[in-house]
Amino acid sequence: MTPFLAEILGTALLILVGGGVVANDILKKTLGNGGGWMTITTAWALGVFIGVVVAGPYSGAHLNPAVTIGLAVAGSFPWAEVPSYILAEFIGAMIGASLVYAIYKDHFDATEDPTLKRAVFCTEPAIPNTFRNILSEVIGTFVLLICVFCFSSAEIDDGSGVKIGLGSIGAIPVAFVVWGIGLSLGGTTGYAINPARDLGPRIVHFLLPIKGKIDSNWSYSWIPVLGPVVGGVLAALFYISIK
Amino acid sequence: MTPFLAEILGTALLILVGGGVVANDILKKTLGNGGGWMTITTAWALGVFIGVVVAGPYSGAHLNPAVTIGLAVAGSFPWAEVPSYILAEFIGAMIGASLVYAIYKDHFDATEDPTLKRAVFCTEPAIPNTFRNILSEVIGTFVLLICVFCFSSAEIDDGSGVKIGLGSIGAIPVAFVVWGIGLSLGGTTGYAINPARDLGPRIVHFLLPIKGKIDSNWSYSWIPVLGPVVGGVLAALFYISIK
Amino acid sequence: MTPFLAEILGTALLILVGGGVVANDILKKTLGNGGGWMTITTAWALGVFIGVVVAGPYSGAHLNPAVTIGLAVAGSFPWAEVPSYILAEFIGAMIGASLVYAIYKDHFDATEDPTLKRAVFCTEPAIPNTFRNILSEVIGTFVLLICVFCFSSAEIDDGSGVKIGLGSIGAIPVAFVVWGIGLSLGGTTGYAINPARDLGPRIVHFLLPIKGKIDSNWSYSWIPVLGPVVGGVLAALFYISIK
Amino acid sequence: MTPFLAEILGTALLILVGGGVVANDILKKTLGNGGGWMTITTAWALGVFIGVVVAGPYSGAHLNPAVTIGLAVAGSFPWAEVPSYILAEFIGAMIGASLVYAIYKDHFDATEDPTLKRAVFCTEPAIPNTFRNILSEVIGTFVLLICVFCFSSAEIDDGSGVKIGLGSIGAIPVAFVVWGIGLSLGGTTGYAINPARDLGPRIVHFLLPIKGKIDSNWSYSWIPVLGPVVGGVLAALFYISIK
Repeated sequence: MTPFLAEILGTALLILVGGGVVANDILKKTLGNGGGWMTITTAWALGVFIGVVVAGPYSGAHLNPAVTIGLAVAGSFPWAEVPSYILAEFIGAMIGASLVYAIYKDHFDATEDPTLKRAVFCTEPAIPNTFRNILSEVIGTFVLLICVFCFSSAEIDDGSGVKIGLGSIGAIPVAFVVWGIGLSLGGTTGYAINPARDLGPRIVHFLLPIKGKIDSNWSYSWIPVLGPVVGGVLAALFYISIK
Repeated sequence: MTPFLAEILGTALLILVGGGVVANDILKKTLGNGGGWMTITTAWALGVFIGVVVAGPYSGAHLNPAVTIGLAVAGSFPWAEVPSYILAEFIGAMIGASLVYAIYKDHFDATEDPTLKRAVFCTEPAIPNTFRNILSEVIGTFVLLICVFCFSSAEIDDGSGVKIGLGSIGAIPVAFVVWGIGLSLGGTTGYAINPARDLGPRIVHFLLPIKGKIDSNWSYSWIPVLGPVVGGVLAALFYISIK
Repeated sequence: MTPFLAEILGTALLILVGGGVVANDILKKTLGNGGGWMTITTAWALGVFIGVVVAGPYSGAHLNPAVTIGLAVAGSFPWAEVPSYILAEFIGAMIGASLVYAIYKDHFDATEDPTLKRAVFCTEPAIPNTFRNILSEVIGTFVLLICVFCFSSAEIDDGSGVKIGLGSIGAIPVAFVVWGIGLSLGGTTGYAINPARDLGPRIVHFLLPIKGKIDSNWSYSWIPVLGPVVGGVLAALFYISIK
Repeated sequence: MTPFLAEILGTALLILVGGGVVANDILKKTLGNGGGWMTITTAWALGVFIGVVVAGPYSGAHLNPAVTIGLAVAGSFPWAEVPSYILAEFIGAMIGASLVYAIYKDHFDATEDPTLKRAVFCTEPAIPNTFRNILSEVIGTFVLLICVFCFSSAEIDDGSGVKIGLGSIGAIPVAFVVWGIGLSLGGTTGYAINPARDLGPRIVHFLLPIKGKIDSNWSYSWIPVLGPVVGGVLAALFYISIK
């Protein structure tokens, strides 16, 4: 699998699972209706896990332009590959969001409130406040990236420097980090912390002929793009300065 | 333990734990009544974990005809063993479902609603829609199988290609994947994603003399068989084409 | 640390954490009041994790007479050490239950219902039925022991047979197994699946001068002792016959 | 990264995630409002995980003066470094608490009840009782430290004594231990079990110009400092005596 394809597939799985739990939680007549924040954040973490399990061995599983850019700023990823990774992440996110709609279409139709339908695709702040919403996204992404920079491999501890790749188990730490960010820092803006996760599905919401849909809230759409990118860059600069 | 026996035992444990949590959640007077979707999906994931811990070293722990067929299509499992694995998975599922009934019989008797009694055994769509219910099962199983194909082993990372078997810990990734699928993609049809998991217990529901039971909903029964098989085959073909 | 002391300490921690979550969940005015079955089973699983982390390197962390006897029947543990292990497990369970009372005494005093106070110590069936309650405990313990017998170590996969001890991480599988048993099979009798876990704290309930307490339900007390022992022995015999 | 900086960063992340989940859970209009004790304890455990992932490779990730002192008493950490570690832990805790306020300020403003605002920063007993509240903190911290002392590394099991560092995965056991302590022993005092976690944010609560805030409950503030230190020292002495 090429890195390009792996990023598409991994991000599609992330958004399929992440968007899927929101649909299951808030759309009418679903089996998981009303699960709440714990359920939503758990499944988003598992979506990260699934995406990393699948894409990890082939692309490193960024699944997030803020990760791609942050790694490039820190010198851990070649700038030349940044555009294709970001493109793949957006394609994947749009595929994932479309699949969520395909699966849950009958439940979209059964739900009246158009803001709930939109919430399956993209984030919305609990209390709109440009500065503070950006700050939330910056800090959430900063935490994610600092963890990514500090993740350490397993290794044989006899001074030989021999590393051990843990395989699929190695996807657990990033999933746990995203779980923690969601539970704790997601209460204000819904923790996009990933431009592709928010803008990709928002475009899908705009394009799809969803019954009784509301506008795609474009006036907010730049915040979950800018915030995560700023957070990722700041984390990279911070990590360079302290490492 | 022979692979045949391991598949029986592993699938029996999967269904015992999975069916058990549904019984505990929806039957009357149980200690865990009303736990909700998070509880149900967590325990199904742990059922997978338990089944894989037990059967993994002996049979590879398919526990699911869609996995068996998908692996065969991908060339990772000999077709000659497919029938005996599938037979073992169905036998195991029927044993597991029977044990759930044996444990929870008093609670079956205390529950009036016959659709709840049936729901302990087999899935039912939240909104019946033949095409979309199949689609749900296809996509859910596709995600499971793609992950199975992409699972990577631990290995010593010095170029020697030496693998490390993680033992029982190695059962965590598939459990987490099934947890994510359940939370996110299970809201429409209840994520059978496994023909044996659904049809085996449905037959048990038909055979057992359950007090005040309803029909076994045979008109729906082919969907959680066909959907998972199609999803597994598509995932295998997709993986072959991209790997 | 001697194995005897390790079993005391590990079992005390198991019951401290397990009894503690029940107190937190059902006694009045606690911060975690009303958490429900998911919360209770999660913490019992974590209690197992903690007990195994602490006792594992010193005694193998049985923490449960049904495990000790089951391992002895299977020939994996010397019969000569069985009595001292069981004694240690009961001492530990009684210490753990006493500490729960010490911590939560004000909440015991604030709770009127004496059956809730007793439920912090020992199990009680949702629907009393001697045969079926025993069956629940037999099957729950059988599942636990089958998993214990099938747990496999990490190993270097080059044919050399070199094992890897995973340290504290190695305590996760048994915790996950107990989590699954609790969520799924615990809905009828409260899954004692451990004679020391139930009888030890029941004796403490009997001895302690708890304000407004009810009797210690001795007529039920033999079931969560006999059931787990039978389940453990059956699992050992079953495993011997199939391995 | 110096150990001093690592302790600041790790503790800041711990308190950011831990304080964040309390804010998300109890402040008005948040997306995660009303998540309950399971949600709060899960995120605190993940906060520990995140802090340990980041600080572990650089400082050993104490993140807690009770851990630092306990390790020193047990002879596992040099007394000369104790003051700088504790200072770093307090600085980190105050940074983390300030960031929680920065993110959730609009929700602080939307919440009337000043005790809820304070609860985002520091603990408060469910039933005030000096002796028993101290006892709760002593026992909770004792359990934490006993686990820390008993954590065992992965190792190659061929008698060579070769250890394996598990990298970021190695942060899971301490997170699970804190999760269990929180669920089970946190119901009385809110399980500070860490002087920096409680006093640092309490000072921040005192200093920040929070709209409509109440006093910082200084009369209780010494208990979650003294209790954890006593618990840590007792655990160290106990471990020395039995190891």
